[in-house]
Amino acid sequence: MTVFTLIEQIGTIAFAMSGALTAMNKKLDPFGVFIIAFVTAVGGGTLRDILIGVAPVTWMLDIKYVYLIGIAFFLSIVFRNKFDKLRTSLFLFDTIGLGIFSIIGFEKGIEVNLSPIICIALGTMTACFGGVIRDILCNDIPVIFHKEIYATVCIFGGIIFFALKFFEFANDLIYVITAVVIILIRLLAVRLQWKLPPIVPHN
Amino acid sequence: MTVFTLIEQIGTIAFAMSGALTAMNKKLDPFGVFIIAFVTAVGGGTLRDILIGVAPVTWMLDIKYVYLIGIAFFLSIVFRNKFDKLRTSLFLFDTIGLGIFSIIGFEKGIEVNLSPIICIALGTMTACFGGVIRDILCNDIPVIFHKEIYATVCIFGGIIFFALKFFEFANDLIYVITAVVIILIRLLAVRLQWKLPPIVPHN
Amino acid sequence: MTVFTLIEQIGTIAFAMSGALTAMNKKLDPFGVFIIAFVTAVGGGTLRDILIGVAPVTWMLDIKYVYLIGIAFFLSIVFRNKFDKLRTSLFLFDTIGLGIFSIIGFEKGIEVNLSPIICIALGTMTACFGGVIRDILCNDIPVIFHKEIYATVCIFGGIIFFALKFFEFANDLIYVITAVVIILIRLLAVRLQWKLPPIVPHN
Repeated sequence: MTVFTLIEQIGTIAFAMSGALTAMNKKLDPFGVFIIAFVTAVGGGTLRDILIGVAPVTWMLDIKYVYLIGIAFFLSIVFRNKFDKLRTSLFLFDTIGLGIFSIIGFEKGIEVNLSPIICIALGTMTACFGGVIRDILCNDIPVIFHKEIYATVCIFGGIIFFALKFFEFANDLIYVITAVVIILIRLLAVRLQWKLPPIVPHN
Repeated sequence: MTVFTLIEQIGTIAFAMSGALTAMNKKLDPFGVFIIAFVTAVGGGTLRDILIGVAPVTWMLDIKYVYLIGIAFFLSIVFRNKFDKLRTSLFLFDTIGLGIFSIIGFEKGIEVNLSPIICIALGTMTACFGGVIRDILCNDIPVIFHKEIYATVCIFGGIIFFALKFFEFANDLIYVITAVVIILIRLLAVRLQWKLPPIVPHN
Repeated sequence: MTVFTLIEQIGTIAFAMSGALTAMNKKLDPFGVFIIAFVTAVGGGTLRDILIGVAPVTWMLDIKYVYLIGIAFFLSIVFRNKFDKLRTSLFLFDTIGLGIFSIIGFEKGIEVNLSPIICIALGTMTACFGGVIRDILCNDIPVIFHKEIYATVCIFGGIIFFALKFFEFANDLIYVITAVVIILIRLLAVRLQWKLPPIVPHN
């Protein structure tokens, strides 16, 4: 699973950089930028661990995450005026992270014997909740609730994942297919500007 | 305890609908509406479980909650233009939920041998914290901190609950009296527009 | 450790009063003021306990905290028009709390065998996260992310703490030196108006 681990690390950096970018746009100081980068990267996995009772949470036992986020923080400061040009690469890495973190969440749910629907919720939280905390700390309504198709893609990926499990595909194949499905749909959604329409009451 | 369970389920649906309504007023997309409905309904119990060390948290082990919130989500969309007419029913169910969820929280605190004051805090959180998360996610200052007598009613109910325990009333009787007290005071508070006055420093 | 315990209690009251003050400035009702005071005082330790898997969390097992926060709430209401005059004392107590709570967090991290970097993160969270929740509940961007040198002082104190551990100083001496360093730097930072400059992208 070396490739998987490598991809997870790239995803962590991408998530951290998206946090750093949001924080810099809010004119936070370096400490604030670092913390927002940190919670964006590890927030989803932390919530997942807390909800299923894994403690100390993952990032506390594996110093790797601190280093990865440190690298992301450094990169964000160095390239802070070039984010426009980096947007495409960042978006790509973020999308890859979305696929990987969802799958990690699905698997953790299976490990503690949760039902598929709850596993899908867990995977979706793992992938998306870091961004939710980022937006709350920056005093915005979380973007995934109104601006873009993001979490919906994870849920869809989860359905594919458990359908493949049901038909007893090999695990590696399930991972690859699920990740590819999540990543492709997300890319398509952004390219074609798919949006869920708001539900507005006509009062 | 079939009646109790039934009432808890009605309360869950009412809490979820209050979340969905708030989210729709913020023009969130369907995913955002569903998530806000979800955390409003289960947020209080989730915080309770985390604080006392119950994991996986309750809603992850009992798929019932997902279905109930799904039903609430569906009802909210169907009746989204009729919320004004439904306001009274919804408010009634929400108030009943307030009573039931408080009692569940008091009991959970007793189960892990917490002192009465802490049990009352736990019950109040169970009943009220879902609404606090709802408001944070929607970028509002939680309404229970400034607009209405809500949590205060749970605290009062908790005092009654432990007074009755002290005088060794039967459990079923304690539940009924506590729930009725919480529900009646809340109804009175809204009907008579009781409000705690803000504490404002004159600087 | 009687002195240590006494100082911790003064710190708890100071943290709670800073929460109460913020809440009163937002015109919250008494319940809202009490809750914000509460989470400001115990929020950091609660997050710490949850992340390392200590449950029920500390304040649920030690009724002392409820009483201390009750005292702070009472003092805040009585002296609500004199906060300007009390600012210096309050700031001093808050700073002392910062030193003590950081050290408590470092030690808790060591107890569960976390690496020094993670222990420093844990101590910093213990000292600072209550203020973060206070600001989120009051719908502000947390001040420690952009206005003042606060968490950075804890991190610096943590480095001193583990350097002294490395050179095998006596624990009591380590505590005193670390606390003094954190308190002095914080006092200097405020007196000299040190601020971390924001990182702003020039887009």
